[in-house]
Amino acid sequence: MKIVIDGFGGDNSPQEIVRGTALAIEKYKDLNIIITGDKQTLENEFEKYDVDKKRVEIVHTTEIVSNNESPTEAIRAKKDSSLVVALNILKENDDVCGLVSAGSTGAVLTGAFLKIGRMKGVSRPALAPMLPTKKRGRVLLIDCGANMDSKPINLCHYAIMGSAYMQKMCGIEKPRVALLNVGVEDKKGNELCHEVFPMLQKLPINFVGNMEARDFLSGDYDVVVADGFAGNVCLKASEGAIQTLMSILKSEIKTRKCSMFGALFMKKTFKAVKNLMDYESWGGSPFLGAKKILIKSHGSSFAPSILASIEQVIDIYNKKLYETIEQTILETKDICDSMIEEKVEN
Amino acid sequence: MKIVIDGFGGDNSPQEIVRGTALAIEKYKDLNIIITGDKQTLENEFEKYDVDKKRVEIVHTTEIVSNNESPTEAIRAKKDSSLVVALNILKENDDVCGLVSAGSTGAVLTGAFLKIGRMKGVSRPALAPMLPTKKRGRVLLIDCGANMDSKPINLCHYAIMGSAYMQKMCGIEKPRVALLNVGVEDKKGNELCHEVFPMLQKLPINFVGNMEARDFLSGDYDVVVADGFAGNVCLKASEGAIQTLMSILKSEIKTRKCSMFGALFMKKTFKAVKNLMDYESWGGSPFLGAKKILIKSHGSSFAPSILASIEQVIDIYNKKLYETIEQTILETKDICDSMIEEKVEN
Repeated sequence: MKIVIDGFGGDNSPQEIVRGTALAIEKYKDLNIIITGDKQTLENEFEKYDVDKKRVEIVHTTEIVSNNESPTEAIRAKKDSSLVVALNILKENDDVCGLVSAGSTGAVLTGAFLKIGRMKGVSRPALAPMLPTKKRGRVLLIDCGANMDSKPINLCHYAIMGSAYMQKMCGIEKPRVALLNVGVEDKKGNELCHEVFPMLQKLPINFVGNMEARDFLSGDYDVVVADGFAGNVCLKASEGAIQTLMSILKSEIKTRKCSMFGALFMKKTFKAVKNLMDYESWGGSPFLGAKKILIKSHGSSFAPSILASIEQVIDIYNKKLYETIEQTILETKDICDSMIEEKVEN
Repeated sequence: MKIVIDGFGGDNSPQEIVRGTALAIEKYKDLNIIITGDKQTLENEFEKYDVDKKRVEIVHTTEIVSNNESPTEAIRAKKDSSLVVALNILKENDDVCGLVSAGSTGAVLTGAFLKIGRMKGVSRPALAPMLPTKKRGRVLLIDCGANMDSKPINLCHYAIMGSAYMQKMCGIEKPRVALLNVGVEDKKGNELCHEVFPMLQKLPINFVGNMEARDFLSGDYDVVVADGFAGNVCLKASEGAIQTLMSILKSEIKTRKCSMFGALFMKKTFKAVKNLMDYESWGGSPFLGAKKILIKSHGSSFAPSILASIEQVIDIYNKKLYETIEQTILETKDICDSMIEEKVEN
């Protein structure tokens, strides 16, 4: 199996990208890697690990796409960047089954749109991160920001892809799929919600209705479907609130001596909580519905996240997730088409 | 000053509503209250407190609007409910300056739309809760769910009203107003954001640009402007994430004896954090832009929140917030009109 890695994407590149890649090579004996970036630097980094050089192909690139530039312009202008070259390698080589990048989310998504394209039948690929829940499970959010102003058909496809992901990758027989909304009642929400609700009911998924953002991490849902704007707000507000609470707790502990004493006995607990909430260590967010497997690893990824992202590619490939999605999309094409026709007629 | 209270709205009504009202009557010597609900029950509740009966007028009603019914239907059908009668009293009496209800949010907002109407010039009234920030300040979110599918002009009015609120009520000279978006760059977001961004730049407010939901509670912003759908997701996702983290921390403490011992020394800290995050004790959410002052107190309000909500009405009235908003809306009418014309021409 061959996977391509953007060697110069992310805050801790190339060191942590190379370390994560080395860990993956050690763990998976049939894995071969193509990695893009400055050849000399990458060679020096790989020297640190006992890696079979025959299994790593370094493709020299001279440019880096940063977080601060316009994604569309960067993808068009920086043809010799580690990201664009990696995308081209993924596109042009049938034996390369997936890509991992910790680079700018906007650039990775734009690049994937422009270079890789959509899976047959999928109206819009979507970014689908997984988060921890109160019940120690996981919930998949789709879409968290790849597409603004989504149409009902897009959300139907998100629901199908998200459900297939949780079924295939997490072994949940009938993933509970919910629509992100402002209340649980059937008729709640904006125009998009009103239109898509009855469509989701007709799809061959376990659609359980509307969900309020308050219950996003409750553990009562496996897949949460949202327009990219609302999904992004839901994800980032959750992250921000957790970070705010942690920070307030930390500073309040420091204002009281007896609390600082008490906190000494709670180190393990604080660490356990931090680990439970640290979903980034599980890997990255799959860009579901793209023609090939793409994992967007978090910008601040360290080696374990890169390893986990590479493992996601392997897992998605081995479990034939993309074949399942393509087949389900094909099978539901008639339902979706007739629902759209119905809508036009009304 | 006369304020009308929905005596039978909220989970803890009428007991906590009456207790909060009694606290307000004791604290504000020139305050008179009209309260709606079952007369005998309310009289019995007021008997518990040393309240001057001349300052409380009980208006007997026979119905209650619950959380589980359709707001529009409830407002139309339950003409003798504590909420509808309270709204009518607010509407029909010039000397009644505001209303407090802890009843169903949907019903309160729908009732306010139908019975009270909009302030002159305001395109859409909006619900504007205030939340605690990391820097121990407060941030106002407007709108958090009163209006779905808002138009650019609505968001302009939210910005003006929110800015005026923070200026007048919290004494912030130049409130930093931000637009909720998926990134901080100027051109980020959905169609609504693209349209409203340049409009917000032209308004006589301190518009500081886009804000990611991650920074909602950072303390870097005083007013966050959003469409009601996204605002609702932002608010509820934040609440849910905080609640999830608290719950995980609690259960993790219980799994370790030394943590339970340590937690004994942290009681004050945990309580302080809880108090810091407990924004509901500050009062309710004003429904800004309605013709008269309306405060939606949280459904689970206890007496201190009801007192705080009554104080909000008094404060808004005394500081002439509504006059300021009306004047600003009038002054910016030409700018707004020309921006809309410009948009139509493009």
